Amino acid sequence: MIAITSSTITDERIAEIVHHIEKFGVQAHVSRGTDRTVIGIIGKAEPKLAEQLRQMSGIDNVIKISKPYKLASRDFHPEDSVIDINGVKIGGGELVIMGGPCAVESPEQIDEIARLVKAAGAQVLRGGAFKPRTGPYSFQGIGVEGLEMMAQAGKKHGLLTITEVMTPEYVDVCAEYADILQVGTRNMQNFDLLRKLGQTNRPVLLKRGFSATYEEFLSAAEYILAGGNPNVMLCERGIRTFESYTRNTLDLAAIPVLKSLSHLPVISDPSHGTGRRELVEPMSKASVAAGADGLIVEMHTDPDNSMTGDGVQSLFPEQFAKLMQDLEKLAPLCGKTFDTKKEPVSIS
Amino acid sequence: MIAITSSTITDERIAEIVHHIEKFGVQAHVSRGTDRTVIGIIGKAEPKLAEQLRQMSGIDNVIKISKPYKLASRDFHPEDSVIDINGVKIGGGELVIMGGPCAVESPEQIDEIARLVKAAGAQVLRGGAFKPRTGPYSFQGIGVEGLEMMAQAGKKHGLLTITEVMTPEYVDVCAEYADILQVGTRNMQNFDLLRKLGQTNRPVLLKRGFSATYEEFLSAAEYILAGGNPNVMLCERGIRTFESYTRNTLDLAAIPVLKSLSHLPVISDPSHGTGRRELVEPMSKASVAAGADGLIVEMHTDPDNSMTGDGVQSLFPEQFAKLMQDLEKLAPLCGKTFDTKKEPVSIS
Amino acid sequence: MIAITSSTITDERIAEIVHHIEKFGVQAHVSRGTDRTVIGIIGKAEPKLAEQLRQMSGIDNVIKISKPYKLASRDFHPEDSVIDINGVKIGGGELVIMGGPCAVESPEQIDEIARLVKAAGAQVLRGGAFKPRTGPYSFQGIGVEGLEMMAQAGKKHGLLTITEVMTPEYVDVCAEYADILQVGTRNMQNFDLLRKLGQTNRPVLLKRGFSATYEEFLSAAEYILAGGNPNVMLCERGIRTFESYTRNTLDLAAIPVLKSLSHLPVISDPSHGTGRRELVEPMSKASVAAGADGLIVEMHTDPDNSMTGDGVQSLFPEQFAKLMQDLEKLAPLCGKTFDTKKEPVSIS
Amino acid sequence: MIAITSSTITDERIAEIVHHIEKFGVQAHVSRGTDRTVIGIIGKAEPKLAEQLRQMSGIDNVIKISKPYKLASRDFHPEDSVIDINGVKIGGGELVIMGGPCAVESPEQIDEIARLVKAAGAQVLRGGAFKPRTGPYSFQGIGVEGLEMMAQAGKKHGLLTITEVMTPEYVDVCAEYADILQVGTRNMQNFDLLRKLGQTNRPVLLKRGFSATYEEFLSAAEYILAGGNPNVMLCERGIRTFESYTRNTLDLAAIPVLKSLSHLPVISDPSHGTGRRELVEPMSKASVAAGADGLIVEMHTDPDNSMTGDGVQSLFPEQFAKLMQDLEKLAPLCGKTFDTKKEPVSIS
Repeated sequence: MIAITSSTITDERIAEIVHHIEKFGVQAHVSRGTDRTVIGIIGKAEPKLAEQLRQMSGIDNVIKISKPYKLASRDFHPEDSVIDINGVKIGGGELVIMGGPCAVESPEQIDEIARLVKAAGAQVLRGGAFKPRTGPYSFQGIGVEGLEMMAQAGKKHGLLTITEVMTPEYVDVCAEYADILQVGTRNMQNFDLLRKLGQTNRPVLLKRGFSATYEEFLSAAEYILAGGNPNVMLCERGIRTFESYTRNTLDLAAIPVLKSLSHLPVISDPSHGTGRRELVEPMSKASVAAGADGLIVEMHTDPDNSMTGDGVQSLFPEQFAKLMQDLEKLAPLCGKTFDTKKEPVSIS
Repeated sequence: MIAITSSTITDERIAEIVHHIEKFGVQAHVSRGTDRTVIGIIGKAEPKLAEQLRQMSGIDNVIKISKPYKLASRDFHPEDSVIDINGVKIGGGELVIMGGPCAVESPEQIDEIARLVKAAGAQVLRGGAFKPRTGPYSFQGIGVEGLEMMAQAGKKHGLLTITEVMTPEYVDVCAEYADILQVGTRNMQNFDLLRKLGQTNRPVLLKRGFSATYEEFLSAAEYILAGGNPNVMLCERGIRTFESYTRNTLDLAAIPVLKSLSHLPVISDPSHGTGRRELVEPMSKASVAAGADGLIVEMHTDPDNSMTGDGVQSLFPEQFAKLMQDLEKLAPLCGKTFDTKKEPVSIS
Repeated sequence: MIAITSSTITDERIAEIVHHIEKFGVQAHVSRGTDRTVIGIIGKAEPKLAEQLRQMSGIDNVIKISKPYKLASRDFHPEDSVIDINGVKIGGGELVIMGGPCAVESPEQIDEIARLVKAAGAQVLRGGAFKPRTGPYSFQGIGVEGLEMMAQAGKKHGLLTITEVMTPEYVDVCAEYADILQVGTRNMQNFDLLRKLGQTNRPVLLKRGFSATYEEFLSAAEYILAGGNPNVMLCERGIRTFESYTRNTLDLAAIPVLKSLSHLPVISDPSHGTGRRELVEPMSKASVAAGADGLIVEMHTDPDNSMTGDGVQSLFPEQFAKLMQDLEKLAPLCGKTFDTKKEPVSIS
Repeated sequence: MIAITSSTITDERIAEIVHHIEKFGVQAHVSRGTDRTVIGIIGKAEPKLAEQLRQMSGIDNVIKISKPYKLASRDFHPEDSVIDINGVKIGGGELVIMGGPCAVESPEQIDEIARLVKAAGAQVLRGGAFKPRTGPYSFQGIGVEGLEMMAQAGKKHGLLTITEVMTPEYVDVCAEYADILQVGTRNMQNFDLLRKLGQTNRPVLLKRGFSATYEEFLSAAEYILAGGNPNVMLCERGIRTFESYTRNTLDLAAIPVLKSLSHLPVISDPSHGTGRRELVEPMSKASVAAGADGLIVEMHTDPDNSMTGDGVQSLFPEQFAKLMQDLEKLAPLCGKTFDTKKEPVSIS
């Protein structure tokens, strides 16, 4: 950590600041420039010290050289983390595809979609039972019943399942039914939810907040990791920018950046990342080319009648199947394996 | 609601779409242009219809002419809403100032600050007992004890109190101690929290998500209103932009915009909106000039040693007192009253 | 300047870097932390050194402690710059109002508007003869003739004039007719234009690029100052954000920030900054409360028929006059003087 | 075009507006809803009408259904445009790679880099002689001499050349030396420059303004096309967002979006789009997977000593060569051809 003084600071004030720093049991190393003075803090400082320095008079800027997250950092864990769920290894060289509808609507709907998702070659069934909606009058999901329907469909067709959990109170019930718990973009900094997920043993797919920096994203992951749950996947799902033609701007550079800063698997969501069906295929391929460990893609058998209005970004089943075949060819050029003829996953 | 077709749509497809619309019990009014056709939907349509149309093939765009929120809208409630709490009337012509530390730290700290806040002329004491923090290793607030300390300080000095609630489970305890419950920027779309707040009778100060549009902001307020709690204040607290010199970009146009779209009181937060102490005074004045019904301002007796690191944006007590005196002169030119010599509020 | 090394750098590489730095005639001061090493560069380094360090292997980050602009900086020129044009002193305690249409349309139009602008109490007539338009098929301004019309109207009514110049080739002719030359937001980094303006002696109003940081803005001003023209005003006119309800987000914190970083006068443009007539009045007042030295405001006698489509953000004459009267009362509370009954400016 | 009225509009005002519309020789089609009325304008309206309607009282919103650009639109020109320069066909199925340094520094530098660019398999040599720099004290390019050096290197090694032109006055001299003229991101809306480029016959690579929407980008291209020059390529080079870890956020969805809205070739710039060397390779591959017609990539033999400081985003020659080989394998899976063993281009 470095503190940069104002250009008008006095020697007395520098001495006071150094004295304050040393009370924290770390060393202060003063380096006077022609214009300003730089104080280096050497040793492991408490976060509180940085915060205090930042607000002390005479200090213009405090730059943390260490990162605010540790367990999520590649420095801490140099090898890629691999999350193994019933033999599906996320982050381990196998491209993992999660496909399915925005929302679970009925047993028939989710069963039929699961069949198609499996037939196309994907490994995970996605579907929402609790839906975060901008306004209170929109369809909010069918709740626990939907969890049951999806669990049955997954088991029948040999697919893992992933579903979104919105509030700490529902973590346990979601964990009972689904193999992976998803934290949505609006909840990336719902810290009570993150803390609760840190106490489960279910893998978590954490979506990037639509205006979160990489550092904030990894700090949110750190909440879950620090709670004791090491099984976190990061998901880039588009950020909010001035461009409104697409629903979001899918930030594909996030994939190599996150993989360099962190050991956690990185998944891309081209459906929410673009909000437009015709962009899902090119952006899926681009995600894999950029190094994604997996994709989460919306597919619906009847997008015109989806209950959430997200049909506009859902692939038709035949588009989904075609995409899987293209990815099977593309994956090996991107250091990944992907086999659309894999055996069903055995779900207990 | 208007649906705009693609330029290549066939008459058959238009007829199908019209047929689909009419199944919802509303009228479809087809207007053919030289290039595209516009289908007007006349009558009160379910939200689901808009969602379905948006994803139907042949439809390029669906434009809602009605707004997604109702109870929050000025069309629905033409007069300004006034929230009366023990005689302090928020939104009713009196400028309301909420001042205090980022976090409650000790009984002595909050008592002394409450004394100074009251002496300066403000009506509400702010202070956090539960703190949302980017990383898990930062100070997270002192919890329920802090609520008690603040309630005592408020009662003693004749100030209303406001505190942040982060999760549905804590709404009841926060409502027991504080006069106003605050929803933080990261929780603006924590829908379970909003629903729970809709069931209390405590006034709520809802902060704008740092990347939320006005429409999303008002839709979030609608969750609380639709739950049965009419006492919602909107708080502009800065948005995230490319500029990083300030912590956020305080969007003061939000004040007149929100007051035209909605009847709810609008409060400005120049402390978080700028993140820099020296900008709080000019931006407080500018907020009032733009039409704010009140301000929420951080003040600390010892900002160098605040526990959250937000001291850098906290005013010193004498700056806070000077600001109150300036606002007393400014308010009448902006259609507000503000009297720094008011009697203490009687807190039950 | 500080260079921060990667955590894996070797002593040999540090020695090489130090050797490289010393070739520039400055000192390198090495400070080893537990994790990384910091190299302070002491003495006045060429910009090129920073650029080179930033790209050297083993260096993670280079932080400039000095600012990239000098002549624009308040460190360099601690007093406020005052630009005196025929007795109108911009930046010197008098609030300066520039009013007029988006575009000059005819001699009658600009004469009538000039009369109203003067009658209301403003000191400067604005009007465009060359208009930057997003598409090639929109009205592009009436050119040199418009300059003549505006100069005549200004002279007749005792108003200074300001007009936009879009390309180096037209600087001389615009300078012949107008008292102040305006650089539009899209041209803030048109460096050849800035260089040319540095060679004139006409005052320049430089608008902030709609996505420019404060540092880029001041660096653009530096181009003009470095060319020899000290008469530069900075104009905040709104930045581009995710919010599309307003045309731009007027960043009022820019006013106190720019006035602290720089000695140059700061003008606010609430018309382009909001793009909506009904927001011009509250944001004008907020600008003055935030410390603006002046405003540039669109006014039109027949906004429904303005040739540029900017009528939607133009005040009607009576709104403009009412605003001037309100500002006359507000200015003294904000440390400014403003007298709507001033004598006409004598234009030579 | 559709005009949406306010909910309180009177029948008289609607009649006035209809009357006004009909004066433009087009039809007005009134469609009354329960809440608001929609007026459809049928026939080819002048741009001015839209602008006028937008600012008329009683009108809430005007929605253009037609696009503001024509010649750039795929509706106007359904087939892909192919720009053939000495047999290199840009936009025609061949992946086109432009490689080279940020700035031309010396005859030896550009000759050696040209040799390596050609050896790796690229078709175009990039290099700047005029450099747009944020501050006036940075290296501004070596000017016309640099154009000559690059032209010689291109001719010798059988590479087309591309260079940036910053101001109308230099278009002719740049066109004399270079095969492709580049418009930089800061000049995307330098309309005088675009108009001048419309009058040349040199192909133009137009970079997207770092905060320009797709519509503004295509409208800028329209300026060049409308001037008579049909040879325009669009270049996505990253947009400005809140994330500062990368220099820009490379918006790869822009590639399929622009190719659907327009017939013009689309090039991606992963060097400026990320600003970090280690991200250039994954983002180059992702660009091709997203459907780019070509890439423009910075490469330098001695990035530590590049004169512009952009070395930090320049590939080393061996990285560039490796990337070309990877792209040779990837291109066929993305519908493109790329042959690193092609004959040199014959430059006249």
